[in-house]
Amino acid sequence: MAKAVVLFSGGLDSSTTLAGAIESGFTAYALSVDYGQRHKVELEFAAKFAKSLAVTEHRTVSLDLRAIGGSALTSDIDVPKNRDSDGIPITYVPARNTILLGLALGYAETVGAFDLFIGANVLDYSGYPDCRPEFLTAFENLANLATKAGVEGTGRFRVHAPLLHKTKAEIIRDGVRLGIDYADTLSCYDPDERGHACGECDSCILRRKGFAEAGVSDPTRYQ
Amino acid sequence: MAKAVVLFSGGLDSSTTLAGAIESGFTAYALSVDYGQRHKVELEFAAKFAKSLAVTEHRTVSLDLRAIGGSALTSDIDVPKNRDSDGIPITYVPARNTILLGLALGYAETVGAFDLFIGANVLDYSGYPDCRPEFLTAFENLANLATKAGVEGTGRFRVHAPLLHKTKAEIIRDGVRLGIDYADTLSCYDPDERGHACGECDSCILRRKGFAEAGVSDPTRYQ
Repeated sequence: MAKAVVLFSGGLDSSTTLAGAIESGFTAYALSVDYGQRHKVELEFAAKFAKSLAVTEHRTVSLDLRAIGGSALTSDIDVPKNRDSDGIPITYVPARNTILLGLALGYAETVGAFDLFIGANVLDYSGYPDCRPEFLTAFENLANLATKAGVEGTGRFRVHAPLLHKTKAEIIRDGVRLGIDYADTLSCYDPDERGHACGECDSCILRRKGFAEAGVSDPTRYQ
Repeated sequence: MAKAVVLFSGGLDSSTTLAGAIESGFTAYALSVDYGQRHKVELEFAAKFAKSLAVTEHRTVSLDLRAIGGSALTSDIDVPKNRDSDGIPITYVPARNTILLGLALGYAETVGAFDLFIGANVLDYSGYPDCRPEFLTAFENLANLATKAGVEGTGRFRVHAPLLHKTKAEIIRDGVRLGIDYADTLSCYDPDERGHACGECDSCILRRKGFAEAGVSDPTRYQ
């Protein structure tokens, strides 16, 4: 079975991506990043969820992005509630997916994997430049130039973003079919200590709407 | 004055790169990464050297790469001494420059810089895939797709690797001309607690040979 490294935060999208990679036949190496985000409880959800799946290994890398700042998720800017502006949101973390995919690539080289999975989505995160297909293609190109394995030709790195063009409702329906209990996942940008969602941040609003549109009752625990 | 983010470890190459960026007229934002490497004393040298130059800001990001392992510099593999094999050395850190440039890019976006400096060198590090010009060009392409600033067209990111095709002797002569005291820099992969170099690792051998070829007396403190 081919090995895959799956970027996995414990949220709805990356949990579905992880379950999907395993269903596709990959041996999954899940990678979480503790990047100094406010919602640390997210990492606890991630650990629990990874355990519930047949994940070969789940590693967490500590990377304190607060040292470079620049986002409501990693600095002292308030997370916006009920936002209705267009453009790139304040929750955008500078170079986030470049950094996350870089870490996934390093982990992949270490374990001998060539397939990287990321739960990027172009519909919900249209404001995030590093969720676009052209970014993902550019990273795939970079990965094959950046690595020992790429240069020696022992394999070709591929970036998989299986949710890229799916609506939240489609993602949820896929996940339900895969047997995911979404009560075990946490998407909120501003959860309380118990991991209960605020229900009002961008991420909660998208998720809530997704359950409604999918016709699936929302199991999320709200504050 | 244009701002530049300079990847800066405190070693000979990155110290020369930093001094060169400042001489070229850039306002320098130095970025060190504490990636769980063995030679932590390197970071203390970096802090001291950055202070001695007109660096606008020097930040250190903690990133524990030991969690993903795979290199003599970040895991429990012994650093090789007096190595004479070809190929990619055991001190190669998987995806290292992809991760470091990703962090530099995030920092650059935060401070409004478009110029990234890295002390990569293709002669001394011919075995490292992520020191090659084609890698650096691919990263530059990625940077402009990955970021808010790149997408909004407020500027174009550039990756500068001014040492890329220089010999160690040429780098040292440049540095001496810039007024660098190389006793304040540390290149060794395996220094002692005082920051004295081992004199035998790949990095020490290259550095030592560089001083000899440059005809500059070697100020390095050896163990």
